[in-house]
Amino acid sequence: MKARVEKLYKFADPKPDAVVFANSVDPHLDGGFFWVFDVPSGLFEGSIAIAHPDGQLDLFTSVLEAETARAAARRDPHVNVHEFRTAADLEEGTKRILGSARTIGLHHQEITHAGYERLTKVLPSAQWVDVSGAVRRARVTKDAVEIERLAKAAAIGSQVALEIPSLLREGLIERDLATEMNHRMMQHGAEGPSFATIVGFGPNSAEPHYFAGGRALRSGDSMVCDFGAYSERYASDITRSFHFGRRDEELKAVHEKVEEAQRAALATIRDGVPAKEVHLAAQRVIDASPWKGRFTHGLGHSIGLRVHDGWGMNERSEDQLEEGMVITVEPGIYLPGHGGVRIEDDVLVTKQGYRFLTTAPRSYVEVPA
Amino acid sequence: MKARVEKLYKFADPKPDAVVFANSVDPHLDGGFFWVFDVPSGLFEGSIAIAHPDGQLDLFTSVLEAETARAAARRDPHVNVHEFRTAADLEEGTKRILGSARTIGLHHQEITHAGYERLTKVLPSAQWVDVSGAVRRARVTKDAVEIERLAKAAAIGSQVALEIPSLLREGLIERDLATEMNHRMMQHGAEGPSFATIVGFGPNSAEPHYFAGGRALRSGDSMVCDFGAYSERYASDITRSFHFGRRDEELKAVHEKVEEAQRAALATIRDGVPAKEVHLAAQRVIDASPWKGRFTHGLGHSIGLRVHDGWGMNERSEDQLEEGMVITVEPGIYLPGHGGVRIEDDVLVTKQGYRFLTTAPRSYVEVPA
Repeated sequence: MKARVEKLYKFADPKPDAVVFANSVDPHLDGGFFWVFDVPSGLFEGSIAIAHPDGQLDLFTSVLEAETARAAARRDPHVNVHEFRTAADLEEGTKRILGSARTIGLHHQEITHAGYERLTKVLPSAQWVDVSGAVRRARVTKDAVEIERLAKAAAIGSQVALEIPSLLREGLIERDLATEMNHRMMQHGAEGPSFATIVGFGPNSAEPHYFAGGRALRSGDSMVCDFGAYSERYASDITRSFHFGRRDEELKAVHEKVEEAQRAALATIRDGVPAKEVHLAAQRVIDASPWKGRFTHGLGHSIGLRVHDGWGMNERSEDQLEEGMVITVEPGIYLPGHGGVRIEDDVLVTKQGYRFLTTAPRSYVEVPA
Repeated sequence: MKARVEKLYKFADPKPDAVVFANSVDPHLDGGFFWVFDVPSGLFEGSIAIAHPDGQLDLFTSVLEAETARAAARRDPHVNVHEFRTAADLEEGTKRILGSARTIGLHHQEITHAGYERLTKVLPSAQWVDVSGAVRRARVTKDAVEIERLAKAAAIGSQVALEIPSLLREGLIERDLATEMNHRMMQHGAEGPSFATIVGFGPNSAEPHYFAGGRALRSGDSMVCDFGAYSERYASDITRSFHFGRRDEELKAVHEKVEEAQRAALATIRDGVPAKEVHLAAQRVIDASPWKGRFTHGLGHSIGLRVHDGWGMNERSEDQLEEGMVITVEPGIYLPGHGGVRIEDDVLVTKQGYRFLTTAPRSYVEVPA
């Protein structure tokens, strides 16, 4: 993707003569590789992408995925696919392409140390520099193709969120609901869940990083469902909270307070606003309530090829929102041993505000037991 | 896990004073971390495990997952859990624990280069050595707990393999069958698929690294289903091939030849046999048939916390099978443009032979259209 490579070089300082993304074995694959090389399927273990300042990309792939790579390259005239059979082939090929480069960028955040050692040995006289900061800055704002894919992944999450109330019944096990949600995401076109689906009933909904366990749903339970889909390699991340059966006045008030906190945070979002302010807008609402101190995590994170895309928003954030960022906004209130509520949406930051990518209703829902 | 740490030190040469496993952000998590620290859930992003020669483990985790870590440590008296809040906390803590170590092992294959730089800066005067070879050797043979989990993951795969024929009908789309198989694995207790499920119909079954696309099932199609489950973090990997509708005599004969090749390979398996011999036993059967040269990949790989667990078996393998290894045995014959057959099982290598972990029938099945 020429425009992405050029964007990467715009942020690189100093400008290297080439940037190399090197995949190891799954799961040690570089998100940057799949950002510069837009290919719909394949693991590309052991593959290497070399991005040049003019936007050209040299792509080394094993025989196994060469056809997949060539099909993607037919849609992108700036990609040259090279096939390798052995490690020696690959070494010789990268050496040939990188031959004249004096300064070469590497993505230290996502290359294994073994991969780093292997590559830097090939051209020992080159100067190898870390371009992780530039990769992060370039990836944090999304282009039109990425926004479309993120919107599609978000739409799948929203659709499943809408369906959750119809799935609830006394005795339902957390893990069975998670399984059903994952299945529905895939039926709606997801490649898979973008992370391990969280379903917490009753006191488990008060643990922000719960998973999906063996508790059975009981009347009077609050519940938190935090999940997301992969669609064309891009992730969504949505949380909806519901109440099942017998009303709990405190948890109803908590839900309304979390909604208010989310609205307050959203109202501050626009290009140029300090990220810290967005977090604090939500925190102030909660800390002025009876549940002061019960919002115990950061307000959100960027989302893209991974659900945690390299950037977080909390009270210590030092940078600003930028037009084109896609971020989660997810305040919560957690009452240990009792229950919790979190509401999370994926939004696109715009010049003057934001646009929701996730759209399922956020307000308090009491599902009859 | 004291015994695992001791096993790791047994293979390390030279013996370091400590071995550090450092997780970065998902998916850049170290399989070695979850091998020395047996914890059923949690991502443990940014966490660090320090394994000592006496089998003790110091475990640094953020506040988010400290409770999960402590629960696991209550079942393992050799684990000491330390909670950190900031990067400075973590740095100070690791420095304190590693203080007197002169030689420190790192797992270069699974640590990011950024993680390597961060850690080695904390104790610049220590000698940092790569223990990847020892980690690989120690992990490739499994203990009783691991074998039990691998068997459970394999049983889930076998159960779904048994159910596939009942799901087939004219017009079924590859990707919809994959979705249904994933759903059934989770219904049978899997945490999720251990890799992207492969379903190839007709000519797509002749591509060994196909995924699951949009082709509709037609009478006369061969089909390859290659999939696996995660259960308690351990993976399975099973392939079954079926024939749908109108008989194709060549593909029936191909199926029987692949079965014969698998039987020939299995017959050679036992502790101490050169891995290359096992591969060649299958290859010889195929190369003596009309489909010479149509077996185009290695015969198998070790399986454990990951579906590709660090060890492969092909015509270039230089090492021997060892009692306690769990490996896949997966010969295939691929007729480009026509169809393919692959049969894959997970087996435990024993002193005198092997034990199947996957159990679904392997023989030719003709599903009526």
